[in-house]
Amino acid sequence: MKGWLAIAGLGPGDADLVTPQVSAALEEATDLVGYGPYVARVAPREGLLRHETDNREELERARHAIAMAMEGRRVVVVSSGDPGVFAMASAVFEAVEAGPPVWRDLDIRVLPGVTAMLAAAARAGAPLGHDFCAINLSDNLKPWEVIARRLRLAVEADFAMALYNPRSKARPEGFGRALTLLREVCAAERVLVFARAVSTPEESLRVATLAAATPEMADMRTVVLVGSSLTRLIARDGGPLVYTPRSALP
Amino acid sequence: MKGWLAIAGLGPGDADLVTPQVSAALEEATDLVGYGPYVARVAPREGLLRHETDNREELERARHAIAMAMEGRRVVVVSSGDPGVFAMASAVFEAVEAGPPVWRDLDIRVLPGVTAMLAAAARAGAPLGHDFCAINLSDNLKPWEVIARRLRLAVEADFAMALYNPRSKARPEGFGRALTLLREVCAAERVLVFARAVSTPEESLRVATLAAATPEMADMRTVVLVGSSLTRLIARDGGPLVYTPRSALP
Repeated sequence: MKGWLAIAGLGPGDADLVTPQVSAALEEATDLVGYGPYVARVAPREGLLRHETDNREELERARHAIAMAMEGRRVVVVSSGDPGVFAMASAVFEAVEAGPPVWRDLDIRVLPGVTAMLAAAARAGAPLGHDFCAINLSDNLKPWEVIARRLRLAVEADFAMALYNPRSKARPEGFGRALTLLREVCAAERVLVFARAVSTPEESLRVATLAAATPEMADMRTVVLVGSSLTRLIARDGGPLVYTPRSALP
Repeated sequence: MKGWLAIAGLGPGDADLVTPQVSAALEEATDLVGYGPYVARVAPREGLLRHETDNREELERARHAIAMAMEGRRVVVVSSGDPGVFAMASAVFEAVEAGPPVWRDLDIRVLPGVTAMLAAAARAGAPLGHDFCAINLSDNLKPWEVIARRLRLAVEADFAMALYNPRSKARPEGFGRALTLLREVCAAERVLVFARAVSTPEESLRVATLAAATPEMADMRTVVLVGSSLTRLIARDGGPLVYTPRSALP
């Protein structure tokens, strides 16, 4: 039997946001690999082996998935959101590059998904409606100086921003430092959206100006959207709409 | 009857990449509004009126959709990819903000989708696997100087980049200028991915170094991904894999 490896994005949480392509791969799979809470989002069925791992063992998880596929298994590695955005796809390709040459012949497919920033933006309005960037605030894999530099340059470019992994128990201080930095270079009225666990029962959405934002508004399930200088609020009952106009003409 | 407006992303082309959430909205809709080729992607059915418009009339199209929903119709505005990324969502909210106050009471939902850069990245490997930005190269709504400045700052930040709308018949020269600018500030081996019409029968994918890239490799159906300085190629039969490592540690 010819094995394959699919690296699939489960979207932000709601089953209605999983693409039919990903659902089909999950139906054909013999093995499911991923971080426990993501594996838990896939319904058990006969013939589907589940391999749950800790969130910090990405490279080992990738090697295990590749090795199983090389043995003829049909393996799906699951990520939340999109697998190519701060998720498992890069880890798998790092493992492929460092692994035995025969791993390059494996049938590997990346199945895209709705990444957290797009789901969060949709809930808020259209804050990413003009040029934007996505920055992972975790300093596990890059020095804080690189993050700080990117934040400053993103403000200088007047990008809207999506900040992934703003805050975790292991790194409680990073997002506070990012807020301090943003306050040095942006106006106090800059609009931020704190989107937590979008499309799940725990969803919450909070809009705040940079002046009013606090580190505690973010946790590890939050993506923070920072508007550009042109991002606007439309006041209405039930919370404002946030959008960035298409035009940056003077 | 209470009307509503959904601004829905159809994904990059393949029906297997349309979320169930979007499919459900399309089934409930009375009216479908959008640019002709996107409306054409939705199967006709009894009870669904189709309103096709030219690509350059976004604000007028948005007003028309809102007005119908205010009259009690169930209206879906369709975009390719994700509606919040260089698509219809911002146009609708611009119309809402400028329109009569009663428009703010309308039930408006944005239904996210798989945007072109994520589908393109998935086909190539994981070129957006580290921090990245998305820049619309169309100078319809911003001066070229803003685009040039953002490209330079994105290189300085060492973002990978997704360049939307690189080239059209009306703007044949913009992408060539972007390439010239990138050659001034990036190494010749910088990796580019030209992803055309991903997930459609017309799909093509081409990987080129910055030195070898030409303006003709892009057209209006292409999204161009530009790697960061760390983006790598994995050589293999059937074309290289392109990925950006998770780590930017020195």
